[in-house]
Amino acid sequence: MSAYDDLMLFTRDTQALAQVAGRLGWDQETMMPREAVPQRAEEMAAMEHILHERRLNPRVGEWLEMIDDATLDDVGRAQLRHIRRDFDRASKVPAQLASRIARVTSAAQGKWAEARAADDVAAFLPVLSEVIDLKREEGQALAAGSNVYDAMLSDYEPGTTGDQIASMFGALRPALTDLRVAVRAAKAPPKLSGSYDEAAQMKMTRHLARTFGYDMSRGRVDKAVHPFSSGSGLDVRITTRTSPSDPFNCFYSTIHEVGHGAYEQNIDDAYLLTPLGRGVSMGVHESQSRIYENQIGRSRAFSGWLFGQMRDAFGDFGVPDADTFYRIVNRVNDGFIRTEADELQYNLHVLLRFDIERALMGGDLQVGDLEAAWNDRFETDFGYAVDKPSNGVLQDVHWSVGLFGYFPTYSLGNVYAGCLHEAMRSDLPDLDISLASGDTTPATDWLRANVQTHGGLYEPREVIERAAGQAPTEAPLLAYLTTKFRDIYDL
Amino acid sequence: MSAYDDLMLFTRDTQALAQVAGRLGWDQETMMPREAVPQRAEEMAAMEHILHERRLNPRVGEWLEMIDDATLDDVGRAQLRHIRRDFDRASKVPAQLASRIARVTSAAQGKWAEARAADDVAAFLPVLSEVIDLKREEGQALAAGSNVYDAMLSDYEPGTTGDQIASMFGALRPALTDLRVAVRAAKAPPKLSGSYDEAAQMKMTRHLARTFGYDMSRGRVDKAVHPFSSGSGLDVRITTRTSPSDPFNCFYSTIHEVGHGAYEQNIDDAYLLTPLGRGVSMGVHESQSRIYENQIGRSRAFSGWLFGQMRDAFGDFGVPDADTFYRIVNRVNDGFIRTEADELQYNLHVLLRFDIERALMGGDLQVGDLEAAWNDRFETDFGYAVDKPSNGVLQDVHWSVGLFGYFPTYSLGNVYAGCLHEAMRSDLPDLDISLASGDTTPATDWLRANVQTHGGLYEPREVIERAAGQAPTEAPLLAYLTTKFRDIYDL
Repeated sequence: MSAYDDLMLFTRDTQALAQVAGRLGWDQETMMPREAVPQRAEEMAAMEHILHERRLNPRVGEWLEMIDDATLDDVGRAQLRHIRRDFDRASKVPAQLASRIARVTSAAQGKWAEARAADDVAAFLPVLSEVIDLKREEGQALAAGSNVYDAMLSDYEPGTTGDQIASMFGALRPALTDLRVAVRAAKAPPKLSGSYDEAAQMKMTRHLARTFGYDMSRGRVDKAVHPFSSGSGLDVRITTRTSPSDPFNCFYSTIHEVGHGAYEQNIDDAYLLTPLGRGVSMGVHESQSRIYENQIGRSRAFSGWLFGQMRDAFGDFGVPDADTFYRIVNRVNDGFIRTEADELQYNLHVLLRFDIERALMGGDLQVGDLEAAWNDRFETDFGYAVDKPSNGVLQDVHWSVGLFGYFPTYSLGNVYAGCLHEAMRSDLPDLDISLASGDTTPATDWLRANVQTHGGLYEPREVIERAAGQAPTEAPLLAYLTTKFRDIYDL
Repeated sequence: MSAYDDLMLFTRDTQALAQVAGRLGWDQETMMPREAVPQRAEEMAAMEHILHERRLNPRVGEWLEMIDDATLDDVGRAQLRHIRRDFDRASKVPAQLASRIARVTSAAQGKWAEARAADDVAAFLPVLSEVIDLKREEGQALAAGSNVYDAMLSDYEPGTTGDQIASMFGALRPALTDLRVAVRAAKAPPKLSGSYDEAAQMKMTRHLARTFGYDMSRGRVDKAVHPFSSGSGLDVRITTRTSPSDPFNCFYSTIHEVGHGAYEQNIDDAYLLTPLGRGVSMGVHESQSRIYENQIGRSRAFSGWLFGQMRDAFGDFGVPDADTFYRIVNRVNDGFIRTEADELQYNLHVLLRFDIERALMGGDLQVGDLEAAWNDRFETDFGYAVDKPSNGVLQDVHWSVGLFGYFPTYSLGNVYAGCLHEAMRSDLPDLDISLASGDTTPATDWLRANVQTHGGLYEPREVIERAAGQAPTEAPLLAYLTTKFRDIYDL
């Protein structure tokens, strides 16, 4: 047994344990009995403790020192890149700081939920200050003299800097706000009305999941309050939700999560339970969920097929034709909440958070000025004022959990999806013919071969660059959105 | 922090991890996608590895040495009794032997399944020999000069010896075979006929679970191929199965598993995630499942209520009255399979296995003579011949898994249930009045207060003795069965 083999065996067990811990999370949101919460917290903590110890295990450091990278092939070197990064990250953060962060963010989530329910920003700010200070301290430890925000980003999007993101987002913002203003002034499509049986929605949603290539023999679809995808390899589970008045929420949540789930399912089986056997970053993950949901799922061609499916399932539901259906599916709606935003406005929500959290971390914005900064920026970009904190600065859980550097990956995913979509359309000129008959396989096969199968083999930007044929930029996304919404809103 | 506190903290995490591992088993039988098997095997192995390391952790031995038992209260001493027994057990078995047993039993299960499918005993015997030799070696290590079979028993029923069991089973056997002969010669009740909607069965089964005090806020009921109960404390899940022609299989499987589940749910919350927070032994566990299923669930009073419930749910299902229903529910049927046996014959199955496995372990029976020994004994006790190995010596998975000393706990559970039932009836003279209206609470409250709440506080025999007011014997079970079947079969 070489040091590399020993390290990979140890890492394989760690990955297996991480899958178990992840599945506990799935269970909690789907199956767990109501009163099991306190016991589950102890179970989760015990698993996290085991995983933390393994991440910091000194033997990992010894193995890493013993291995000569030159003796490895590309796959071996990529595995080591991940293992080394994880070990360095764990080693750089003092144990006491890590446990303080765990304690404070745990308390902060409770405070945030209370503050949101009471629309009381002031009640949340003290603990948010603590979280920011601790996370900044952690970022400094990770950065070791380099840029602190970049070090935070690296937890979610390794190899991408805040400046790179700022440059792309800076180009997106004026174009999107202009488009938004034009759309708001134009005549809107009708809204969906009626009531849709929830069991029939779930039946349709499973049909859609299969249509997008989700493999039910390696996964399952259940209901949860907030849809998510969970797991890697041979056991990748997704969730969705139903509401009688809003079947699109169910269907497009499912298609979105299928994008995440199919990414995990379609990684080369040779990487099972290794560091390469997971989606490579949050941004690339989101590129898959978004291209499934939007560029494919909300395309004119595919929505035409879906219109027919819905008529078969629900009868006449008050939408006269496929064109109207397409415009309803892509309707731009005023609203305050990021998670409910449409394809056009979603990125404006994310850009706002990115700029604000970077300013908070850099010390350019004080917590006491946070609400005003949020509300000013919102009114500037959206054209109307935030009415209450639960519709504004208190709407997202992320900061209370200590997730700084996470928000931008949502829009980075959209940027990546734009690049991939442009390249895919160029390779598949007849794609719409397939989509119009509900056949997504040309698209999903293309994504599988060019993105998904690689898992963690390449760095995130490199995956996109290899698949798209050029370094990622915001231009394709912007061109796609502009064309699409000009068409739909007849601008 | 005292050594006791440190030890308890460590043990609590171990218990939490054991709950996680147990829930993986539940998931595998209820929710896991079909193709996830190989990944799940690695996840389970990684969890087992962690748990094994913790059981053997030298710090546990150090803490145990540092603690002065005299400084502890009864609860503390009981906790230590469990921790010390587990640590001693783990320490006594050489690591190499433990891993050989794991490897061989894993292979043996596959061989057993193949042999059973092919009705080919000879194909199973070589690996069974290996299992027996290894388990005997393990038993010798555990016994350290004392009785080997008793050491094996101690894994499932600590504090009970093979001789004690042999004495009780020896008294049961002639009485039960005599009763069986008489019943076989008498006129049998009719059989249930018709088809019963499976969704309606599941609805009724959940209703029955609640009726027996199963707490749905700390548990759930799902379907599985083989019904089981899983978990302790705040998250105790049970499973059942449905067959259109046999609703009793569903209902009584559920009531049986509710007995196991309610035992775990009703343990004093103060023992949550400690060694006392689990059912104390397999025998006491089975006493709860059996008394729920048989002495309560198949009583004349309760079955009268169930008859009415079934008429409400399924309409007229061809059974004219409650008396006939009671006799159908308790019908004695010829058959080869232990798991399908009725209340009267079940113990004869177990007694057979107990004598045979003790002889195998003691060297008084050679593997080459096993099939003949099984078939002879079966014909003697049941009155007809085994027709094929899958209906005889190959029917149970237990020995292939290395479970020696486990079978007797099934009938020990029945013996204990007999003792508890006698005492409970004495304390609750009006119990049948409640049961006749579907109110099980006097019975389940009695079992909760006298047995379940204690968890692992007392040794298994002591729990029964405290609850029943005397040391356990087979006499109450025998008296109960004799009276019941004489009545039903008009002997």
